[in-house]
Amino acid sequence: MAGPEMVEYEDASPEVRAVFDDIMQTRRVDRLNNFWKVIAVHPPTLKRTWESLREVMAPGALDPMVKELIFTAVSATNGCAYCVTSHGGAAAKAGASPEMIREMLAVVGMANETNRLVFGYQVPMDEPPAAVAETDAADASKRRPRSAQVRARRAGRDQR
Amino acid sequence: MAGPEMVEYEDASPEVRAVFDDIMQTRRVDRLNNFWKVIAVHPPTLKRTWESLREVMAPGALDPMVKELIFTAVSATNGCAYCVTSHGGAAAKAGASPEMIREMLAVVGMANETNRLVFGYQVPMDEPPAAVAETDAADASKRRPRSAQVRARRAGRDQR
Amino acid sequence: MAGPEMVEYEDASPEVRAVFDDIMQTRRVDRLNNFWKVIAVHPPTLKRTWESLREVMAPGALDPMVKELIFTAVSATNGCAYCVTSHGGAAAKAGASPEMIREMLAVVGMANETNRLVFGYQVPMDEPPAAVAETDAADASKRRPRSAQVRARRAGRDQR
Amino acid sequence: MAGPEMVEYEDASPEVRAVFDDIMQTRRVDRLNNFWKVIAVHPPTLKRTWESLREVMAPGALDPMVKELIFTAVSATNGCAYCVTSHGGAAAKAGASPEMIREMLAVVGMANETNRLVFGYQVPMDEPPAAVAETDAADASKRRPRSAQVRARRAGRDQR
Amino acid sequence: MAGPEMVEYEDASPEVRAVFDDIMQTRRVDRLNNFWKVIAVHPPTLKRTWESLREVMAPGALDPMVKELIFTAVSATNGCAYCVTSHGGAAAKAGASPEMIREMLAVVGMANETNRLVFGYQVPMDEPPAAVAETDAADASKRRPRSAQVRARRAGRDQR
Amino acid sequence: MAGPEMVEYEDASPEVRAVFDDIMQTRRVDRLNNFWKVIAVHPPTLKRTWESLREVMAPGALDPMVKELIFTAVSATNGCAYCVTSHGGAAAKAGASPEMIREMLAVVGMANETNRLVFGYQVPMDEPPAAVAETDAADASKRRPRSAQVRARRAGRDQR
Repeated sequence: MAGPEMVEYEDASPEVRAVFDDIMQTRRVDRLNNFWKVIAVHPPTLKRTWESLREVMAPGALDPMVKELIFTAVSATNGCAYCVTSHGGAAAKAGASPEMIREMLAVVGMANETNRLVFGYQVPMDEPPAAVAETDAADASKRRPRSAQVRARRAGRDQR
Repeated sequence: MAGPEMVEYEDASPEVRAVFDDIMQTRRVDRLNNFWKVIAVHPPTLKRTWESLREVMAPGALDPMVKELIFTAVSATNGCAYCVTSHGGAAAKAGASPEMIREMLAVVGMANETNRLVFGYQVPMDEPPAAVAETDAADASKRRPRSAQVRARRAGRDQR
Repeated sequence: MAGPEMVEYEDASPEVRAVFDDIMQTRRVDRLNNFWKVIAVHPPTLKRTWESLREVMAPGALDPMVKELIFTAVSATNGCAYCVTSHGGAAAKAGASPEMIREMLAVVGMANETNRLVFGYQVPMDEPPAAVAETDAADASKRRPRSAQVRARRAGRDQR
Repeated sequence: MAGPEMVEYEDASPEVRAVFDDIMQTRRVDRLNNFWKVIAVHPPTLKRTWESLREVMAPGALDPMVKELIFTAVSATNGCAYCVTSHGGAAAKAGASPEMIREMLAVVGMANETNRLVFGYQVPMDEPPAAVAETDAADASKRRPRSAQVRARRAGRDQR
Repeated sequence: MAGPEMVEYEDASPEVRAVFDDIMQTRRVDRLNNFWKVIAVHPPTLKRTWESLREVMAPGALDPMVKELIFTAVSATNGCAYCVTSHGGAAAKAGASPEMIREMLAVVGMANETNRLVFGYQVPMDEPPAAVAETDAADASKRRPRSAQVRARRAGRDQR
Repeated sequence: MAGPEMVEYEDASPEVRAVFDDIMQTRRVDRLNNFWKVIAVHPPTLKRTWESLREVMAPGALDPMVKELIFTAVSATNGCAYCVTSHGGAAAKAGASPEMIREMLAVVGMANETNRLVFGYQVPMDEPPAAVAETDAADASKRRPRSAQVRARRAGRDQR
C-alpha cells in the first residue's frame, strides 16, 4: 500500500519548512517523524499542532518526562499504536526507565477498569469527600479535605 | 432517585469489613468513598479491585502523585466525572499543585487531538525512528535512537 | 432545565403511533421509555431504530437475557448511564440475577483493563494460536486449535 | 519490525514461570499466548492480571462462554483486534457457535448506535420506569417494575 | 494470515445476492467492498445494515457529501482505519475536496481536545445560554438565543 | 455542589480579559459560555484553545455550519453533554435546521455501529478499492477510483 501522502523536507514550501526547522531544532533531532510529514499536507494544521505541542509539552510545573508518560497513557487508552510508540519513546528519551513505563501502563489498565465499574454501578459523587483521619494530623499540610480539584483552582486564584 | 445500593460499614459482612478496614488504614482516612461502598455489593469485586489498586498505586519507580495524575488523565479521556474528582483529589492530596493538574489536562487535550489526527491521516509507523542530532552528543546517555519502548524492555531483561 | 422535546402518545402522528403501539405490544408494557419519545421527533430514526432493535434483541442463538447483558456491557464501556439503567433493567426482567449483573460488570472491567495492556504493550497477533494440550484429548470436540473466529465462519459456510 | 520484547518460558524467572505454569494448567494448553509473554516483562502486572482474569472468567452465575462473549463484545467496542481474536476464539472454544458470535456482534453494533442517540438527544432518565402491562400478570415472577439494577442490588443484600 | 471469511458474489445465496445487487446498483459500482462480503456471513446483519445505511446516507436535509464527512469524522474519532478509508473515499467521490477533508480532520482533532477539557474541568451546563449581542440584530433570523437543540426540536414539532 | 472555579470577566487579569474580549467580538455575543470561564483558570490553555478554535472553526473550504455539525457529531460519539449542547446550538445558530441536526445524529449512530462491525469482524482493507461502474461514465468528473484520501492529498500537492 502506498500509504498517505507525505511532504518531504526537500519538497516543502518555505512556510512548511520553517515549521520543520523549528521542530528539529527544538527537539535536537535531524529527522522528522512521519506524523509531521503527513499533517504537512495541511499547513495550518501542521503549524497549529506543532505550536500547541511545543507549548504544552515544554517544562513547566510538570517536567517533560511526566508529560510524555501522561501523553502515552492517553494514547494507550485510545488505542493509538503510532502515538504509544512515539510518545513512549519520547518518555524514555526524557529519562523514563522501563519500570516507569510499565508502572504507567499498569495505572492505565486499572483506571480503565475502575472507570467502567463506576459507569456500570453508577457510583454517585461523594458529598462531602471522605475526611482525613485524626492520625494523619502531622501531615496536614499535604491534605485537602474538600474537592481537591476545586480547591486547587481556588488556591491558584488566590495566589494570583 | 434513590441511587445504587451501598454497603455501609455497620452493615458489612466480616469479609467486606476487612477490606473496608484495610482501605481506611492504608489511606489513613476514617470514611469510605462511595465507590467502595457501591462495589461492596459484590465482595469478590471489592476485594480484587482494592488489592489491585493498592498494589498499582503504591510508590514504585513512579511516585503516587504521578500515578494519580496519570489515573486522572485516563479518567478525563474516558469522561468519568466521579473518577476525575476522586483521583484529581488524590493527586492534589499527594502533592500535585493546581498548576500541575492544569498542565496534565492540557496534555490530555493535546493527546486526544493528535491521536485523532493520526487516526484520520493514518500516519504509518516510523521505521526506523528519527535519529538524534550530532549536536546532542554530550547528552548521549539519555538518548535512545531505536524504538524506545522496545529498547526499554530489552534493557529491563538485560538487568535481570 | 426543560430537557429535550418528547413526543407523547397523544400527540403522535399515525406513523409514530404505529411504532409506539408495536413497541408496547412487543414488550408487553403500557408505557414508553423516554428514549422512544425523544427520538420520535425524527420519525425515520424512530422506525429504523425500533425495527433494528426488535430484530437484533429477539431470541435467536442467544437468548434475550444474554443479549441484554451484552448490551449493558457495551453501555458501561461507553459510559451511557441511561443505557446501563434501561438495559440492565431489561436484563433483570429477562431473568438475570443480581449476581449475573455483577459478574458481567467484573468482566467489563477486566476487558477494558486488558484491552489497554494490549494497546500499551502492542501485543502482536498469535500466529498460530496456542495448541491444546495432549491431556485434553478427551474433550476434543470443544477445542478449536486455529483462529476460532475464522474457523467459526468457515464452519458456518460449510453448513450452508 | 522486531516487535515488543517477550519473555519465553525457557528464559523466565521462577516467579514468572510459576504464573506461566498456572495459566497452562488452568486452560489446559501447552503454549502461551503472546499477551502473557509480553506482559511478563513486568512480573507484578503478569501475576495480578492473571489472578484477576482467572477469578473473573471462572464459572459462576454466568458460564464461561457467556463471559467470553461479553469480553469479546467490549473488545469489539474498543477496537482491540488482538482481544477480539483471542477472546472470540475462547468463546468458540467454550461452546459459542458461529451464529452466537454473529448475534453478539449485532448487539454490539446496535448498542454502540443507540448509546450515541442517547448522548446526542440527551435522553433524560426514566422516572419511574415503564410499568408492566396487565396482560403480563401470569409471568409476574420475572418482572421488575422498578429500577431493575437497584432492585437487583437490594435483592442481593436481602439474601445475605 | 488468512483473514476473516468472506462471501463472494458467486457463492452467495439468493437472499444475500439480492442485497449485493442492490448495493451495487444504488452505488453504481460493479464491485463490493470487503465490509459487505464479510458481514454477509450473517445475512440478517447484512440486510439490516445495508437498508439502514442506504436510508441514513441518502440525500435529505444534508447532502451525501456532508453525511460522508460526518461519518468519516466519527470513524477517525473511534480509530477505525477501514472506515476512515472507505468513508473518506466516499466523501471525496461525493465531491469533497482534499481541503474539505483536511478541515474536517482539524475539527475532529479540536472537538476531541475540547471534549476532554470539558470532562477534566467538569464544566457545568450554561443556564441560560449566552445571549446574542445587540450589534448582531440585523442578522437576527439566524440566531437562537436559547438552547438551540431544544429549540430546534420544538420548532420541528410546531411545523408538523 | 459549588462546581469548578470560574473566572468572571470582572475578576480577569488583562491577559485573560483580552481573550474574553476577542471571543465575544468574534462571536458577536455579550456573554461568555462557562467553558471559557472555567479554562481561564489556566490562561495558557484559554489562549491556546481559543486561538485554535477560532482558526479551525472559521469559514474555509467547509462553512461554519458544517463544521459545527461535525463538532457535534464527535461530541455525541464521546458522550460530552456540554459539548453537544453548545456546539449543537452553534450549528443551529449557523443555520442548521432541526432536520439537519437529526440527520447528523442518525449518521453518528450508524457510523458508531458499523465501526464496531468492522472491529468485530476484522474487515481487511480493500485493495484496490471497488472500481466504478461503466454505466457511471457520464459522471466521471466526480469519481475517484483509487483511495480517495490518498488521491486527495496527491492532488493537493500537485496544485501547490
